Amino acid sequence: MGLIVQKFGGSSVGSIDKIRHVATLVKKEVDAGNQVVVVLSAMQGETDRLIAMANEMHVDSHSREYDMLVSTGEQVSTSLLAISLNSIGHDAQSLAGWQAGVKTESRHRHARILDIDTKKIQTILNRGGIPIVTGFQGFDQHQNVTTLGRGGSDTTAVAIAAKLGADACHIYTDVEGVFTTDPRIEPAARRLNQITFEEMLELASLGAKVLQIRSVEFAGKYNVPLKVLSTFNPGPGTIITYEDESMENPIVSGIAIDRNQAKISILGVPDSPGVATKILSAISEEGIEIDMIVQNVPREDGTIDFSFSLGRADYDHAMLIMDRVCTTIGARNVDGDLSIAKLSVVGVGMKSHAGVATTMFDALSSENINLHMISTSEIKISVVIDEKYSELGVRTLHSAFNLAES
Amino acid sequence: MGLIVQKFGGSSVGSIDKIRHVATLVKKEVDAGNQVVVVLSAMQGETDRLIAMANEMHVDSHSREYDMLVSTGEQVSTSLLAISLNSIGHDAQSLAGWQAGVKTESRHRHARILDIDTKKIQTILNRGGIPIVTGFQGFDQHQNVTTLGRGGSDTTAVAIAAKLGADACHIYTDVEGVFTTDPRIEPAARRLNQITFEEMLELASLGAKVLQIRSVEFAGKYNVPLKVLSTFNPGPGTIITYEDESMENPIVSGIAIDRNQAKISILGVPDSPGVATKILSAISEEGIEIDMIVQNVPREDGTIDFSFSLGRADYDHAMLIMDRVCTTIGARNVDGDLSIAKLSVVGVGMKSHAGVATTMFDALSSENINLHMISTSEIKISVVIDEKYSELGVRTLHSAFNLAES
Repeated sequence: MGLIVQKFGGSSVGSIDKIRHVATLVKKEVDAGNQVVVVLSAMQGETDRLIAMANEMHVDSHSREYDMLVSTGEQVSTSLLAISLNSIGHDAQSLAGWQAGVKTESRHRHARILDIDTKKIQTILNRGGIPIVTGFQGFDQHQNVTTLGRGGSDTTAVAIAAKLGADACHIYTDVEGVFTTDPRIEPAARRLNQITFEEMLELASLGAKVLQIRSVEFAGKYNVPLKVLSTFNPGPGTIITYEDESMENPIVSGIAIDRNQAKISILGVPDSPGVATKILSAISEEGIEIDMIVQNVPREDGTIDFSFSLGRADYDHAMLIMDRVCTTIGARNVDGDLSIAKLSVVGVGMKSHAGVATTMFDALSSENINLHMISTSEIKISVVIDEKYSELGVRTLHSAFNLAES
Repeated sequence: MGLIVQKFGGSSVGSIDKIRHVATLVKKEVDAGNQVVVVLSAMQGETDRLIAMANEMHVDSHSREYDMLVSTGEQVSTSLLAISLNSIGHDAQSLAGWQAGVKTESRHRHARILDIDTKKIQTILNRGGIPIVTGFQGFDQHQNVTTLGRGGSDTTAVAIAAKLGADACHIYTDVEGVFTTDPRIEPAARRLNQITFEEMLELASLGAKVLQIRSVEFAGKYNVPLKVLSTFNPGPGTIITYEDESMENPIVSGIAIDRNQAKISILGVPDSPGVATKILSAISEEGIEIDMIVQNVPREDGTIDFSFSLGRADYDHAMLIMDRVCTTIGARNVDGDLSIAKLSVVGVGMKSHAGVATTMFDALSSENINLHMISTSEIKISVVIDEKYSELGVRTLHSAFNLAES
């Protein structure tokens, strides 16, 4: 007997029949004597349908209105689940973000949750009911509807679990947990029974789309007991742990691939103090986040090459800025590359094991995969490679670190 | 320069292009120097789509959840109109019922508006903006979303106009105003330049679907200057007036037909004091409204026949009750008829003119149309006829009262 937050993604509530199935999963927890709060995404395809309407109306819709529009998606899925649970005798009540007390900053499309006033949720729980909360949305101090960005429903679920001090937060999705790598690329990929919070954070930021990175940050901040599992094939799933049990941890837990990467190089830059700052500040002033940075050793003519990687969505914008900077600092020219990918190895065990980088680089080299950039942290090593080697790179590393073994 | 409430129905906002057209009508009023509040229905077909989903989930969805579900329809249309107006440079902001301060009683599917806290609407108007309010919905004191019933957007518009003391409330629809009768039945039907509030009230209650009857009641209570006009073929429309100018009024203003009628007869009722009360109270206890009542003179055996008309939606329910009552009071049997219609003649002028009933009955009789029931008020005469004579009855009366003449 405990308090459980169950979150179901868009593919789990993609049809009337699927929502009925979700109702059985909720009922199961309630029948086991638990209090349950449910958080839902919009029905699969619904958010895209709404965005398409906004885009058809105007290419650049006002963010406040965009949020009003797309937030209807979760109101539909939550009320349908409530109808389903009502029909089998449960006191379930759907709550939109403003009803559930999900207070956010006054920012649209990517608002952050400031606090959750759980009074209404608690009232429903206290009378034995099931609150069904719209994920992905909240409201600001001016009573405007806000949304949290793609995947924001994970964050809603984790935030509610944190605020209520829930015993567990179960993230139901269309995969059976967190895998050693993407099973669509490497069929031998293995589900992990558990993964540390730090590893999950790295994997989320490296392009593994199991959880929104902000939900993982939130979970870590409040030690929310998190589990990822499948809606249609429930099993043990993957538990996210917070204890540092590095002695027992495998050296490498997983391999991530992120194709949403681009590289920009500014070539023939006269090497003078502060030139890197000039380049990087021009980019950061525009709110563009960059990832890896490489600066070559100076040529004999005193010029250097300077490269950085960034998300593809910001590529066009950054190229415009770099063309301007190129002229200002007297560099030769700017070169862009949209055909790259970031391949990463993650594992808390690598803190205490040298040689992970050697194994990684040797394995990639033996397949003639060139490394454009390298970056490391305590628990991950990332390299930028040509995008065409993405699948080969993943399979090569999965095998090199023996991840298929259980 | 004034304050105008513009209300557009579902067919007026049925597509992205139609919403763009609505934006031009709003812009026109704003460019003329007016302050404008817009009220919208859901996009045509959207409410039905949402109801179909609810019904697919469960035949009898909980009313609170039903309201949560269907109220998303207006949130979609209003935000799309706001996007359209934003894109042509206007500060337009969509407001859901709870944001617009539309307070209703705590009742679902058919809630009544209690009050409108126009603070938010006024704030937007004061800064030169355009509030775009979801029709058909509000919220109760527990912050539950409520809906006002079919056609409730008219009531929202009129209530806002009343509360703001608007100079005009324009109801845009797919017809060019209020006609002497349904032009699909009688092509010679003529648009009325004006109609009195009392006549409009009768026409709305008699099945002319131009305005929801509650919106007309509301308009009358607060003397809201109301005009009905076409979205796609704007013209002078029809103005609803409040002054009693019966000297200038035509005897008959319009002919209404309501096919949504049924008749139930309880036959061979032993005639004793209070028997009518027994029959009618059984019906009213179940919240069913009945319309006309006819009681025959007693037969020689001391029994009477008792008939009443009611809406078709209540027919099955009422038949079950009557079967029970039939046994209780020792009547012979119950007879139901779903093939009837109510044909009505409306006009404030008939107050001062005898002979309207004579003209009406003579005209129908000359076409061999039988009258099952008759009811009259100061400004209308209604008769129940066989449904198959609906069109013939309308055309006959339209001609008998010379309504095609301008």
